[in-house]
Amino acid sequence: MNSTRDIDALIEMMAKLPGLGPRSARRAVLHLIRKRELLLMPLADQMQRVAATARECENCGNVGTTELCDICTAEKRANGQICVVEDVADLWAMERSQVFKGRYHVLGGTLSALDQIGPEQLRIPKLIDRIDTEQITEVILAVGATVDGQTTAHYIADQLEGRVRLTSLAQGVPIGGELDYLDDGTITAALNARKDI
Amino acid sequence: MNSTRDIDALIEMMAKLPGLGPRSARRAVLHLIRKRELLLMPLADQMQRVAATARECENCGNVGTTELCDICTAEKRANGQICVVEDVADLWAMERSQVFKGRYHVLGGTLSALDQIGPEQLRIPKLIDRIDTEQITEVILAVGATVDGQTTAHYIADQLEGRVRLTSLAQGVPIGGELDYLDDGTITAALNARKDI
Repeated sequence: MNSTRDIDALIEMMAKLPGLGPRSARRAVLHLIRKRELLLMPLADQMQRVAATARECENCGNVGTTELCDICTAEKRANGQICVVEDVADLWAMERSQVFKGRYHVLGGTLSALDQIGPEQLRIPKLIDRIDTEQITEVILAVGATVDGQTTAHYIADQLEGRVRLTSLAQGVPIGGELDYLDDGTITAALNARKDI
Repeated sequence: MNSTRDIDALIEMMAKLPGLGPRSARRAVLHLIRKRELLLMPLADQMQRVAATARECENCGNVGTTELCDICTAEKRANGQICVVEDVADLWAMERSQVFKGRYHVLGGTLSALDQIGPEQLRIPKLIDRIDTEQITEVILAVGATVDGQTTAHYIADQLEGRVRLTSLAQGVPIGGELDYLDDGTITAALNARKDI
């Protein structure tokens, strides 16, 4: 099977992407080969380009192609507020909502004793540096409501206590959510945080 | 957003692949960027390589990197039998079962009046050529049990009638299938084709 070795290798690599398996990788690769000029060649070029230029922002950990990312260098964004997220996907999710106008800090994961991930692995020292150098007044801890996420939030809160205002995202019923489908924890949180109308 | 333009473009391209959408494309691209040396660079290179070399076999329409594919040139495979499939994915599925040892012919789709796909678009003339040049004695029509697939099978059968033995895949209960979950058509086909034990 010499003649298909390259194609097989490509399928194998694609199959390792999150969300793809062997079957969908085969489908995707066949689709790409069928539309070689329209899809495969541009995609290969674009991947080359990103592979050559993608890098983490030195300041916040966001991905981009420059030493400092667009958000860190944007003059129009508010200073003084940092939103701390676990990873870049969370930063993108926040940005899609277009409501936060401050700066970000991407931890790159959560503290985890099991996986031996401590503060040093998580860009937490850099966050503490930034509090002073950027005159931060509020840190919004937008980490996941998981055990590891909350452990991380507590650790950061301990480190920064008394130096800045610390906030976290509100917990409650998601917009469009039906009570019937919500877990008990969310309902409890929403009830405890109930508001006057 | 200049610094992420290349990354955004890559996500947009990945999102167009079958089986991926915007969300899974974002996840895949972030995963690739995070493992740049281990995953992104090799994948980009491999894609480049396939884009440069992938081509259809001149004889049967299978994909490969040579003028004639491995199956058409394999000396160990039996001559005289051609298995006609709709596309390369079907050929791969047949090959995975490792039971057919003859040659293939990939139509590249099915006849479709609506989409203006006639015999000329489907490599059917080439199939008819091969009957003579390769001294074919049996044509196995392994096309889908869909309306278009069956129309295509009938058309090919008409063209080849009397010149070769024409067969089609058996229809019936899939291995591991439960009757309860099968559609009426399949049960009818399986009952009509029942066998003595």
